[in-house]
Amino acid sequence: MEQYCLNGFIGTYNGNDKHLHKQTFGGYSEKVVVDEHFVLKVPKNLDLAAAAPLLCAGITTWSPLRHWKVGKGSKVAVIGLGGLGHMAIKLAKGLGAEVTLFSRSPSKIQDAKDLGADDVVISTDSEHMKSVKGKFDLIIDTVPYVHDVNPYVSTLSINGTLVLVGYLGDLTPMLNSVPMIMERKSVAGSVIGGIAETQELLDFCGEHNIVSEIEIIKMQDINKAYERMLKSDVRYRFVIDMASLKN
Amino acid sequence: MEQYCLNGFIGTYNGNDKHLHKQTFGGYSEKVVVDEHFVLKVPKNLDLAAAAPLLCAGITTWSPLRHWKVGKGSKVAVIGLGGLGHMAIKLAKGLGAEVTLFSRSPSKIQDAKDLGADDVVISTDSEHMKSVKGKFDLIIDTVPYVHDVNPYVSTLSINGTLVLVGYLGDLTPMLNSVPMIMERKSVAGSVIGGIAETQELLDFCGEHNIVSEIEIIKMQDINKAYERMLKSDVRYRFVIDMASLKN
Repeated sequence: MEQYCLNGFIGTYNGNDKHLHKQTFGGYSEKVVVDEHFVLKVPKNLDLAAAAPLLCAGITTWSPLRHWKVGKGSKVAVIGLGGLGHMAIKLAKGLGAEVTLFSRSPSKIQDAKDLGADDVVISTDSEHMKSVKGKFDLIIDTVPYVHDVNPYVSTLSINGTLVLVGYLGDLTPMLNSVPMIMERKSVAGSVIGGIAETQELLDFCGEHNIVSEIEIIKMQDINKAYERMLKSDVRYRFVIDMASLKN
Repeated sequence: MEQYCLNGFIGTYNGNDKHLHKQTFGGYSEKVVVDEHFVLKVPKNLDLAAAAPLLCAGITTWSPLRHWKVGKGSKVAVIGLGGLGHMAIKLAKGLGAEVTLFSRSPSKIQDAKDLGADDVVISTDSEHMKSVKGKFDLIIDTVPYVHDVNPYVSTLSINGTLVLVGYLGDLTPMLNSVPMIMERKSVAGSVIGGIAETQELLDFCGEHNIVSEIEIIKMQDINKAYERMLKSDVRYRFVIDMASLKN
């Protein structure tokens, strides 16, 4: 649980290195000196480039899936199909859950099913939303901008939890306490994951052959990639080939 | 978990009796026919009048204390010292927790300590609030009107949960997701309790000699009692002596 250290954590990017007192550069570094406690082992059968996002989108969704004890028979929903959402689908499915994607866009239905989702519910269709009322044990909410969570709370089962992993800010429109009280529902948050659970995730992905869907780009194309990312035109993570830096 | 029955529950008061298709009168009834599944046994050593509120204020606070696994060493806070709050203090204390009351009123300090609270934090004093930042595993929020829960969320520990039991409505001001995500905190709700856990509560109260603080009134004084209740002038529950109905 290093991510919840009461003394704060040192960000991989733009953090303040406590030994060098300089900025950290994360994966943009050519070399890095690391305490052995923070070194992870990537299973041999995983493609390194496709495994890279496991250390961010992967662990961010794995940690709440494990903390809220998702397993065989769990009913899990994922809000939003992006970098986080596509990993949440693969991992929840790998854990044996029945997985539903909430999306505003019917164009995502086939993609979600290809990734392993059992069902896709169009969140702008109120009849479709009603059909899954009271269904889910856990909802992983990956939406990174302000949105109304109340319609999703309605789809939680008794004792269900909605976990925010993408949106940092005020919950507006306001959260209504009535369904939370009358059906013992929770709204929670979760950030990234610790070293032990990240290793657990990597081992799990090795066993289940799970990696991120990626597109490899050269460093020189990063501005173009950024523009495409803003338009959601990426399936589902860009990975920079650092060798291109030398070109 | 009868209180969370998906078919709804029949309220003790003003409910629709499903056999008689008439209104239910709860404790105002002179006689009542009950399915044996819904009959509870009050321990002999408890005063019947003082045990009566255990079936409402008692179980409403007991259920979340048990669901969120409060025990020896737990750090519990209670917001508001009324019928629910005073039971929450007694029960959390009985379970072995360290108990803090949040109150706006310094006049409640001695009362809370007499009930067993280890500490009282004045919620309008921001320095006092800061002194308990990140402290509590569980907060039982008994406040029955709209209020800002964000300052209380700050006092939750990593993995802590704030449970609403009193206020039904929109959470305004808006709940901010940042501390929930960065410290894996939850905001949840809970309503009353089931038959099995109510019996468990009664047995526990029998063993620990716990009852509600009450004031017995005659039926004829109910309007006066209602006025006093609106002014928070009750320590901490009125109990009507039903024999007075025959006067």
